[in-house]
Amino acid sequence: MTTRNIWRLAKRPVGDIADGDLEFLSEPLPPLAEGQFLLRLTYLSLDPTNRIWMSDMEQYMPPVEIGAGMRGGVCGRVVESRKDGVAVGDLFAGLGEWTDLMVSDGTGLSRLPEIPGIPLAAAFGTLGLVGPTAYFGLLDIGQPKPGETLVVSAAAGGVGQIVGQIGKIKGCKVIGIAGGPAKCAWVVDELGFDACIDYKSQDVGAELDRLAPEGIDINFEQVGGDIMVAVLKRMRWFGRMPLCGLISGYNAVDAAEPPGFWTQMLMRRLTVRGFIVTDFAPRFAESGMALAGWMLEGKLKTRQDIRPGLENAATAVKDLYSGGNFGKLLVEVTPP
Amino acid sequence: MTTRNIWRLAKRPVGDIADGDLEFLSEPLPPLAEGQFLLRLTYLSLDPTNRIWMSDMEQYMPPVEIGAGMRGGVCGRVVESRKDGVAVGDLFAGLGEWTDLMVSDGTGLSRLPEIPGIPLAAAFGTLGLVGPTAYFGLLDIGQPKPGETLVVSAAAGGVGQIVGQIGKIKGCKVIGIAGGPAKCAWVVDELGFDACIDYKSQDVGAELDRLAPEGIDINFEQVGGDIMVAVLKRMRWFGRMPLCGLISGYNAVDAAEPPGFWTQMLMRRLTVRGFIVTDFAPRFAESGMALAGWMLEGKLKTRQDIRPGLENAATAVKDLYSGGNFGKLLVEVTPP
Repeated sequence: MTTRNIWRLAKRPVGDIADGDLEFLSEPLPPLAEGQFLLRLTYLSLDPTNRIWMSDMEQYMPPVEIGAGMRGGVCGRVVESRKDGVAVGDLFAGLGEWTDLMVSDGTGLSRLPEIPGIPLAAAFGTLGLVGPTAYFGLLDIGQPKPGETLVVSAAAGGVGQIVGQIGKIKGCKVIGIAGGPAKCAWVVDELGFDACIDYKSQDVGAELDRLAPEGIDINFEQVGGDIMVAVLKRMRWFGRMPLCGLISGYNAVDAAEPPGFWTQMLMRRLTVRGFIVTDFAPRFAESGMALAGWMLEGKLKTRQDIRPGLENAATAVKDLYSGGNFGKLLVEVTPP
Repeated sequence: MTTRNIWRLAKRPVGDIADGDLEFLSEPLPPLAEGQFLLRLTYLSLDPTNRIWMSDMEQYMPPVEIGAGMRGGVCGRVVESRKDGVAVGDLFAGLGEWTDLMVSDGTGLSRLPEIPGIPLAAAFGTLGLVGPTAYFGLLDIGQPKPGETLVVSAAAGGVGQIVGQIGKIKGCKVIGIAGGPAKCAWVVDELGFDACIDYKSQDVGAELDRLAPEGIDINFEQVGGDIMVAVLKRMRWFGRMPLCGLISGYNAVDAAEPPGFWTQMLMRRLTVRGFIVTDFAPRFAESGMALAGWMLEGKLKTRQDIRPGLENAATAVKDLYSGGNFGKLLVEVTPP
């Protein structure tokens, strides 16, 4: 265990992530200092925000520096420890690097509970990262009420699938928007969404008019662009829009913002609120317990899209921006 | 008392309100039916929303129909009653018509308390209408905390003057934006704002950089357009924007919305929420008592801009859109 593999940011992407933007290196492993421990990563989480961190656009934490290990959500087990209270075999998850062996003093990590009946990929992928995003975004900001109409874009993705199912648990009519018939069928047939619009083959606005002639109370926004505009035009009075992501613009070279909807926000008394899941970190125990409970009761299903091999991370991440993933995208760094 | 004067909407304005859009008529007064009473109006409130109601743009209540009496905030005393529990001399305020004698069954009206030490123009103009707008918009949506920086546009207007003073009561640094040195001096010297930017002679963005290098936590938005854009660019993380009005666009023939700030709303986790004061109607007693208390304690000063004569209403209302009023704009229909 004297070397490790790591993806480093070689240069900032222009437009789509290209070969060579990230560099896969084998490096000597630095010895542990007092207070540090070594994690062998099991899963690496690939998320839309990865592209933000690679850029120097305005963002909510410092971008990854050129030459630094690529930042990502990770989980792994302790294989060596020089930190009090941390033992070999302990399971941690949080923010780390795209590597197989990670030296940490615990900053940005927390212990991941192992819950019988919930596989590690679901516990990490759903309870650890995208679950709280869906939970707080929908419940705190969206404030769903029984009978209301909820639209969620990127419906088959990591966050979207959970948002829609929580919406159903809360008694909403849930309309997903996803790319392709397989994803649309899955969120309706397997997850119980009321409907799903295939943005690749259908006119989103016309389908919304047909499926939700009453208008939309909550728009859980993840994609931005024309899809967001189509939904926003159909918001009802006192509608809420948790603004979780704008993935359609992350790869844009000359990003044109969707237009403002200021007059409509005023007249219809809409609430738009941007958020990042870490804003809710002090309440992660609440979301984790609620989500785990729904999973154990069979009310919350999840689907991961697991790609084996750290060396494939830089290729896999591109699928997020083309819709090539089906479920929460994870890289299996080491078999669990 | 067999005739009354009334302003009726003759046609919808195109651009600025023009002579002939409103028609001043003398009409026979219809006899009171059972359950009705007759109010002699004391004050008519002129508000930015008047222009919205005259148009057929998207809005939050039905527009005024062509030929109907122009809608407005009114207060007046009962001069004749055929309604149980309503006596001659009772004072009412609420939504009514631009008239001197108004027949009502009480719909849209409520009793206006007469508080010793508070003149009727202030009680009606401040406690009855713009006060709750400022109170709920700032406190419920803006959620000011001590030490935060609050910017309020249209700072010397009816709502803005109260927003800024409540901001000071709550411990904020308050920066107003107003047109001309007299208004700017008044909000600083008389009302205790920390600073005021004269948008007619100063570069709003540069002044904000100088006065609030720390950025802006709360933008109480009333005007839209370039001023809103200058403020939005300087919002701090977790900033809030009560969206109260967009007056700069109300007279536009081909209204161009200010651009979207979606990426910034996401990355800085901003909250934008549109509201109309009537959304808070069930809580008007709360705002009325709080505002009256601050007025009696000398912490809340108000300035009305009172124009005598109902016949002058159609001319006076135009001042709202050119910045020609200084304080809450009222028409004195009958001496109080």
